Amino acid sequence: MNPALSTCITTELIDVFGDDALIADAARVSTGTDRLDKGHDGLIGFLMRNKHGTPFEHGSMTFRCEAPIFVMREFVRHRVGVSINETSGRYRELETKYYYPSPGRPLTQQGKPGEYTFTHGTEQQREITFDGVLNVAQEATQQYRRLLDHGVAKEVARMVLPVNVYTQWYATMNPRSIMHFLSLRAAPEAMYEIQVLAESIEQEFEQRWPVTHRHFNDNGRQAP
Amino acid sequence: MNPALSTCITTELIDVFGDDALIADAARVSTGTDRLDKGHDGLIGFLMRNKHGTPFEHGSMTFRCEAPIFVMREFVRHRVGVSINETSGRYRELETKYYYPSPGRPLTQQGKPGEYTFTHGTEQQREITFDGVLNVAQEATQQYRRLLDHGVAKEVARMVLPVNVYTQWYATMNPRSIMHFLSLRAAPEAMYEIQVLAESIEQEFEQRWPVTHRHFNDNGRQAP
Amino acid sequence: MNPALSTCITTELIDVFGDDALIADAARVSTGTDRLDKGHDGLIGFLMRNKHGTPFEHGSMTFRCEAPIFVMREFVRHRVGVSINETSGRYRELETKYYYPSPGRPLTQQGKPGEYTFTHGTEQQREITFDGVLNVAQEATQQYRRLLDHGVAKEVARMVLPVNVYTQWYATMNPRSIMHFLSLRAAPEAMYEIQVLAESIEQEFEQRWPVTHRHFNDNGRQAP
Amino acid sequence: MNPALSTCITTELIDVFGDDALIADAARVSTGTDRLDKGHDGLIGFLMRNKHGTPFEHGSMTFRCEAPIFVMREFVRHRVGVSINETSGRYRELETKYYYPSPGRPLTQQGKPGEYTFTHGTEQQREITFDGVLNVAQEATQQYRRLLDHGVAKEVARMVLPVNVYTQWYATMNPRSIMHFLSLRAAPEAMYEIQVLAESIEQEFEQRWPVTHRHFNDNGRQAP
Repeated sequence: MNPALSTCITTELIDVFGDDALIADAARVSTGTDRLDKGHDGLIGFLMRNKHGTPFEHGSMTFRCEAPIFVMREFVRHRVGVSINETSGRYRELETKYYYPSPGRPLTQQGKPGEYTFTHGTEQQREITFDGVLNVAQEATQQYRRLLDHGVAKEVARMVLPVNVYTQWYATMNPRSIMHFLSLRAAPEAMYEIQVLAESIEQEFEQRWPVTHRHFNDNGRQAP
Repeated sequence: MNPALSTCITTELIDVFGDDALIADAARVSTGTDRLDKGHDGLIGFLMRNKHGTPFEHGSMTFRCEAPIFVMREFVRHRVGVSINETSGRYRELETKYYYPSPGRPLTQQGKPGEYTFTHGTEQQREITFDGVLNVAQEATQQYRRLLDHGVAKEVARMVLPVNVYTQWYATMNPRSIMHFLSLRAAPEAMYEIQVLAESIEQEFEQRWPVTHRHFNDNGRQAP
Repeated sequence: MNPALSTCITTELIDVFGDDALIADAARVSTGTDRLDKGHDGLIGFLMRNKHGTPFEHGSMTFRCEAPIFVMREFVRHRVGVSINETSGRYRELETKYYYPSPGRPLTQQGKPGEYTFTHGTEQQREITFDGVLNVAQEATQQYRRLLDHGVAKEVARMVLPVNVYTQWYATMNPRSIMHFLSLRAAPEAMYEIQVLAESIEQEFEQRWPVTHRHFNDNGRQAP
Repeated sequence: MNPALSTCITTELIDVFGDDALIADAARVSTGTDRLDKGHDGLIGFLMRNKHGTPFEHGSMTFRCEAPIFVMREFVRHRVGVSINETSGRYRELETKYYYPSPGRPLTQQGKPGEYTFTHGTEQQREITFDGVLNVAQEATQQYRRLLDHGVAKEVARMVLPVNVYTQWYATMNPRSIMHFLSLRAAPEAMYEIQVLAESIEQEFEQRWPVTHRHFNDNGRQAP
């Protein structure tokens, strides 16, 4: 039984609701100002600059994400305005598919915690990393299958699987929680793998809420 | 300047996203079970009975609500999975329109706090109530206008308005938070006016998520 | 029956738990760094600058607050990390005590919504405001008592009371939610009355978490 | 380099605030009822039966927990009223200490997802499980050390560690969120390992909030 190895981290947009206009409409309930001929641009910019965050909670995107467990473990820390359902190793046999660093993933770091600088690493370091991932993946796959074959419960057997095994989850987020997520995770100090995930979420977000996204950028990428 | 009086409490569905199928799909990520030919019914019933609540967070409804402030003050206490934008008396002049009890609204109560029984009340009590509402509405309207006419700031002038003055808000809720809201507010012990609001939200919810709604009822109207 | 009038907005600290050391200890679980001889100062500054917010959620303060309803209506919008119990006009007869602007409260504004400049106002404006508050308070008190005397339910009778009637609530907040509250409400653009409330909360917060408070100030008064 | 193996799941109470009296006091703000001579018992029972949940949010316990990652992954799903800081494999070298099932941990299951019955398992299954855990732990420990020794970044190297490696976290919860946690995790259908964790939290909770805990039990162990 050979483990599958992959460098992919993927998100698929399942459904979406709301747009820049809905955010502006929600805000206009507060102020009672009329719709401007020129559109929502000025109002959304005002909301962003003045940290009026609640109008940005009207709307939602649902994604199906696939990434290793150690990425999911960071994703799940986003609690407000984020709803998640994840593959359960208690209820189903997990796919023995493991993540390894793609050539673009820096392998080495300097500096102290919280102020690291990452560097690419040598060819030897890349080989040792791949080799380490592969060896553990093989051992874990073999033991996981062996335990299952002997009738051990799925939730017990899965404890031998490493945190780079793939998992899947559905995530529903509103524009405000997406921006909060992006401010922390589509940032250079974030872990590489969650940056990849965040960037693919950002593309969908930008496409659906272009005005909001532009003002998010202009406002120093701080969630309102 | 005469105040407007009304007995109406209204909700308007602005937008909606998700359905029973999305809830089932989100749950299937956990269990990995295939779609059943017979549809989502069994799965959603299982989730509801076993209080697996998170799949019900995928989806959203946005409402525009109009009701007196004292109703909004109960609505706003629902914090989780609810996003709200309300008319601001700081930013706009409020409409001098006031709620009074419709003929269907019971006026009298017996029993101790938390265990009241409501009764219809006499014709005289109904007249006195209308009269009381009208008198305060007239005085409040006159003083509010007078303060504004003399250049006093809106946020200062509005402090004379009674809690039965109308307000408006946008609310976005997911199915789980809607069910939690309904379990407490579309219930006989809830305040009459928020029951009216909750029932109109329930109609929209039932139409969009019929399977979920049926299992909610079958499960004692407890949110999962 | 004469209404009581007051300019007071008060908070009383009921209980408190946690301190700067607990925040630092919670953060050290992540990093595994040892306690520094020089104390928590550097670590807390690092957390604040880098927006590592979760360590600041360990700890709590419980306040008893007394303020008019229109202030409570802003307070209650803070949902995350804030727990509230408020006087219920359904369960108890409300005290007929009303807020009016103290001499320090600016009465007039210029500019457009969201960009107001407040000015003190004339003596005449102050008299008219007091007079308006008093007249509505008298009418509301009289009608409220009359409805209650005729056996109308408390929750019906209270709808004639204006939003400057006093209410009380218990609020429990953690340091992170306190800082978020202060960033928005102890700010010059906030409504005067909630600034008063926020400043009294800030004093208690500063006394208990002096290091955190200092770094909050040094970091532009943004909640991490 | 030998890995450490353990069957322990531990919680340590770091700090606590609030008690039954604070819950009752917070509730009395709503109802305005006087303190009863006989104490808080009746009031807390009333709140629990009628699902008045907010008074139970005043108070907090902070725990330091130590358990394998796969347990932490369930713990972290509790979002409301729960604050967490966890050991970071990005910032520190993780201790190569792994969980294996104690003799009391059932190893086998029958039935379909969500309706499992667990059974003890045979001696052979227990040996195979221990053997599987040990083999993966050895391989993972060796590769983790090797990667670190070759200068690979901690956050890259840790991806080979299995989900039964130990982690630590600080958790602060209020009585309401504790009861919600206990209703789901100190329940027979919960995963064995999180039951162990939940039971040790429940002991501390019962000791500090005996009246609340008793009514929680009497009310079918549903969080209000």
